[in-house]
Amino acid sequence: MMDGKIGKKFLKDYITRTRPILTDFVKGEEKKGKSMGFVPGELMKSYREMVALGKGVRGTLVTLGYKLAGGKDTKEITRVSTFIELFHSAILIHDDFMDRDPFRRGQITTHKKFEKVGKKIKVKIPADHYGNSVAVCLGDAGYFMSWKVLLSAKFPKSNVFKAADIYADSIISLTMGQSLDVTISGAEKLKEKDLLNVIWTKSGDYTALLPLRVGAVLAGAKDKKFFKAIEGYAKCFGWAFQIQDDVLGAYADEKKLGKPVGSDFREGKNTLLIYHLKKRATKKQLEFVNNTLGNPNISKKDILKMKKLIKESGSYDYVVKMGWDYVNEGKKYINKLTKNKKLRIILESLLIYMMERTK
Amino acid sequence: MMDGKIGKKFLKDYITRTRPILTDFVKGEEKKGKSMGFVPGELMKSYREMVALGKGVRGTLVTLGYKLAGGKDTKEITRVSTFIELFHSAILIHDDFMDRDPFRRGQITTHKKFEKVGKKIKVKIPADHYGNSVAVCLGDAGYFMSWKVLLSAKFPKSNVFKAADIYADSIISLTMGQSLDVTISGAEKLKEKDLLNVIWTKSGDYTALLPLRVGAVLAGAKDKKFFKAIEGYAKCFGWAFQIQDDVLGAYADEKKLGKPVGSDFREGKNTLLIYHLKKRATKKQLEFVNNTLGNPNISKKDILKMKKLIKESGSYDYVVKMGWDYVNEGKKYINKLTKNKKLRIILESLLIYMMERTK
Repeated sequence: MMDGKIGKKFLKDYITRTRPILTDFVKGEEKKGKSMGFVPGELMKSYREMVALGKGVRGTLVTLGYKLAGGKDTKEITRVSTFIELFHSAILIHDDFMDRDPFRRGQITTHKKFEKVGKKIKVKIPADHYGNSVAVCLGDAGYFMSWKVLLSAKFPKSNVFKAADIYADSIISLTMGQSLDVTISGAEKLKEKDLLNVIWTKSGDYTALLPLRVGAVLAGAKDKKFFKAIEGYAKCFGWAFQIQDDVLGAYADEKKLGKPVGSDFREGKNTLLIYHLKKRATKKQLEFVNNTLGNPNISKKDILKMKKLIKESGSYDYVVKMGWDYVNEGKKYINKLTKNKKLRIILESLLIYMMERTK
Repeated sequence: MMDGKIGKKFLKDYITRTRPILTDFVKGEEKKGKSMGFVPGELMKSYREMVALGKGVRGTLVTLGYKLAGGKDTKEITRVSTFIELFHSAILIHDDFMDRDPFRRGQITTHKKFEKVGKKIKVKIPADHYGNSVAVCLGDAGYFMSWKVLLSAKFPKSNVFKAADIYADSIISLTMGQSLDVTISGAEKLKEKDLLNVIWTKSGDYTALLPLRVGAVLAGAKDKKFFKAIEGYAKCFGWAFQIQDDVLGAYADEKKLGKPVGSDFREGKNTLLIYHLKKRATKKQLEFVNNTLGNPNISKKDILKMKKLIKESGSYDYVVKMGWDYVNEGKKYINKLTKNKKLRIILESLLIYMMERTK
């Protein structure tokens, strides 16, 4: 029986190969930042440290999309694929500010870190607003660094333009999905359709479909059937990824996860776990859930109670099963994607790993 | 004697021609936003209204850079030039959030508008944080819309790539300059060199040099001497623009300006006016200046007093003269840029208009 080990190793290899590429690229910008002043230099340093800690899921999928479409220049696609990792770190910086999260990837988040810097250097504006502001500046810079890398791709120019168009469109949708996510946080009544829509635009699309498509397009893929199969696989991959993300967000080992467990509860995020808990909860339980979600001072005890309720109500099992169903459905598309046995094994194991992963 | 009338008319014509292009483009995204939900739709609507109110300085310079380099496709460069107007509105959204400005272009700023929306739809997170968050989402979307337009340019692909590279590099510097600007707001001791550096990266470079260079590169310009002249003219243009911006920020008719006069004082911005006031102020005056700058509740009376001090100290005249000196210096580069008499007249009049403009 196939498991996620090969996929896990594939990801790890990707990270090992791309970490120096990412670090070197940001170092160039860091040097410029330093020449401008202390804060720009520190911001870029912080970004450099952050990009080195990514899970590499999206970048790996760019390289896979390229290979599935018959691309041969492994070195170049590996370098270029880092554009999505640069983007990912950048949007996480904005995301963490919006979600008011204090930790990410085991580190203090950018806006929180620079709130401290602001206090230290005695900025005249409120330190929290200062932290938020320069964090937004850094995220902005990250977007343009990402573009720089993508557009430097030494692939046929028309392929690069197509990839860029896909990238731009996906991210415009993503940011709008993000605005919706911020809006519906803690909303008591929500249609399942709307929730799924937000989760997909905010996460699934750009975690799986965007990178696979960009990779394929960079290799010159044009076949519609192939792109249909990409879509099918990506849909399942994206959902499995996001479901496990929600599960880990509530049940992972905090140290492994690198961010506080239960922050989704604190921010009142409508994850699938919460959505299904609400559907199953008794009136009294629902009262607790609604009062607790979005409480900025949520206690450890309430987090534990919420986790217990999710398990006892059957919501946990339901959502986890949903994730595995996506894994099984996703497998069906692999045959249509490639005849290369090695690639097939990687695609399958990686998909399984999305649900097996513990961080 | 030449004045700014021709330049003013040239700008106005540009705005008339590009407003429908900008509006139509954003309408497409607005439709997608609406299909996602109320807030994404409202955000895009707000962006559409905002881009239609730009001064058009940067877009005009893209078309001029293109024409100076011999470009002939006026229709296409006009369309493509709107990329910088899309970017400009996007970064203003982020900027207004950072500066906590309530008004821009005669309209309520995005973060303030959506703070109200948040209250109306009863979001669970604090309404001001909600407004800030979705405003950042919208700015993010604007960046990617800008890229979409630039990369759709029907010019030789290698020219477009070069333009994109210039764009990315300039904006990375700009965001770092922005972080520095947020940092030094209200800083009591500041070297003139650092201040000039911030102003240039934050404003001059991207207002004048970036658009002119991008336009020229899109037309295929390669001559180093030509780019040297572009740099010279752009430097003077950018400074004249920024100096008059600072002057208008303190002395314009508020209704014409579209934003509150004196908000630079409230945010504690180190404008050239303030910098030179500080150098000339008596000890007692300096005490007032330092206590007043950056005061979020600055009174109308204190704003008036500050304006009076700037005039009485001679700082006003000094800075305005500086602006006109830049105009005169900038004129010297025009001969090196083109032999076309019509273009020369436009370049000169536009430069003058940067100091003559009242909004």
